[in-house]
Amino acid sequence: MRQTRLSLAEIHDLIAAALIRSRTSAGNAASVAAALVAAEAAGQSGHGLRRVVSYCAQAASGKVDGFAVPVVETTAPGALSVDAGHGFAYPALEMAAAALPDMACRQGVAIATVSHSHHCGVMGTLVEQFADAGLIALMLANTPGGIAPWGGKTPLLGTNPIAFAAPLAGDRPVVIDLSLSKVARGRIMAAKQKGEPIPPGWACDSDGNPTTDAAAALAGTIVPIGDAKGTALALMVELLAAGLSGANFAYQATSFFDAEGAPPGTGQFILAIDPVRIGGQAATERFAALAARVAGDRGARLPGRRRQALRAEAQEKGILADAALIAEIEAIG
Amino acid sequence: MRQTRLSLAEIHDLIAAALIRSRTSAGNAASVAAALVAAEAAGQSGHGLRRVVSYCAQAASGKVDGFAVPVVETTAPGALSVDAGHGFAYPALEMAAAALPDMACRQGVAIATVSHSHHCGVMGTLVEQFADAGLIALMLANTPGGIAPWGGKTPLLGTNPIAFAAPLAGDRPVVIDLSLSKVARGRIMAAKQKGEPIPPGWACDSDGNPTTDAAAALAGTIVPIGDAKGTALALMVELLAAGLSGANFAYQATSFFDAEGAPPGTGQFILAIDPVRIGGQAATERFAALAARVAGDRGARLPGRRRQALRAEAQEKGILADAALIAEIEAIG
Repeated sequence: MRQTRLSLAEIHDLIAAALIRSRTSAGNAASVAAALVAAEAAGQSGHGLRRVVSYCAQAASGKVDGFAVPVVETTAPGALSVDAGHGFAYPALEMAAAALPDMACRQGVAIATVSHSHHCGVMGTLVEQFADAGLIALMLANTPGGIAPWGGKTPLLGTNPIAFAAPLAGDRPVVIDLSLSKVARGRIMAAKQKGEPIPPGWACDSDGNPTTDAAAALAGTIVPIGDAKGTALALMVELLAAGLSGANFAYQATSFFDAEGAPPGTGQFILAIDPVRIGGQAATERFAALAARVAGDRGARLPGRRRQALRAEAQEKGILADAALIAEIEAIG
Repeated sequence: MRQTRLSLAEIHDLIAAALIRSRTSAGNAASVAAALVAAEAAGQSGHGLRRVVSYCAQAASGKVDGFAVPVVETTAPGALSVDAGHGFAYPALEMAAAALPDMACRQGVAIATVSHSHHCGVMGTLVEQFADAGLIALMLANTPGGIAPWGGKTPLLGTNPIAFAAPLAGDRPVVIDLSLSKVARGRIMAAKQKGEPIPPGWACDSDGNPTTDAAAALAGTIVPIGDAKGTALALMVELLAAGLSGANFAYQATSFFDAEGAPPGTGQFILAIDPVRIGGQAATERFAALAARVAGDRGARLPGRRRQALRAEAQEKGILADAALIAEIEAIG
């Protein structure tokens, strides 16, 4: 695979231009490009450049409304709801991230729910922004169906990521970002494309039997972390990210990848807490003390540190991208 | 083992009387007894009658202040903090549960943090009370050290339970209640008492190597669910339940079981959300629709249903208790 080194600004412009050529407003294109660049910079390429062709196809077909203008409504002193209008998730999340911190500082705690939304990429990036502003943030999102209820066979629940960040006195925030499936759906899709089997324990077929066949796995269900426990957490995320916001549940949502069918219409949930308001000035020092103990345990690493290091490197040196993919993105529209 | 059938009221009185004979106020004894009875009724005997001897010893020794009066402070329009005063957790949690719902209805969302606290038993019982009142509730607690940071060897993080409940239109709430260790510490303690080995995959010794020796496991660390993911969630729970409240972290906390040393001083975190305020009247109908799909997937069961059925049965028929344990509790003090 031939690779080409590009600066983050070059990648941003490349993505934004492709989106604009695919029936997307300049503002929305910039928002999406920023999120995909941040994913690439953090080493999360499954949520970066590789999404551009699919995003553009969905905007061009109208499955995603590239001209959507998210609408923010204050539903309670501590709550915002954002209607993403079946556009990309990122402009809606940006609006939530712009309004929520003030509300959290005023109320101590505040939540935002996002409906009629789409794939929301690397959530760690967003919660880290809150922590950079001194807030604790927890973000949940639902995704199209992947996980069965424990004991069941039907992919009623998404792989439903959870992200969390907290500010540490005198240090970069701790950032947690995980999905509730044992492995990312993308790894099973990659195995299918290569015609390779998947390891045992990753997935079940549509009859609920363990499978190593990638195609059967994609037609079936993905194994959650922690068996019944991960399934229960995925149900909690569905209820908060989709049930509360009025978004589609996993079993109602269309794919984030192809340009067919109705919009996915998934949802997100963000909780923001002002730690100083709740726990006093010492709160972020206590967080830092725990983080230091974790980082100091031989062999252990604090969640978020690897991505922060990759991002710092990418900001300085740019990133190596697949030249064929770059050419494909340049040819869009 | 000889068993004796007792009504829930009889068990309540038995527990309360033993606590009162062990330097605990009548009010606190009633609060603790109600929580332990609820645990027994829900089939969670590890948090029920079996705790009484240990609780009484801790109150008698002063490790737990049986006369503590929790102090509630409103720290922000959406936030309460409760100082449990190194007493039992339940009186402090009762105070939080009394004040938090009004705040959540007014603000849309509200949180309570509890510090200087102790073992908080079956959290599903508490979050279900919120859901019975129409609210969504998420509760987190830290516990004395059990889980190592991923890659590390030191039990810096607790097994840190997570409980969640949401109201379902026309039905009992869905109730999730789990800890982040692969198995409960109590099962390893039981194996040690019987002199039996534990299955592979449950725990590591203090050098970080997998072990099937129960004593080595208790001196080492318990394996989290989902490997690095469960560890990250345990870190999140530490930050919210202990870091935010000003409670002791897992690595600072003494045992919940013996009467030695300083009070554990652990913490809890409760988030309450008014779903109607956020998501309109249809919110709990949407929750019920998802729950019905989960319950309807052949082989699957909705989280919380088994405990609710056990509780209904226990309320009618009482429970079978170990006669020797009952005699031991009657002899306390």
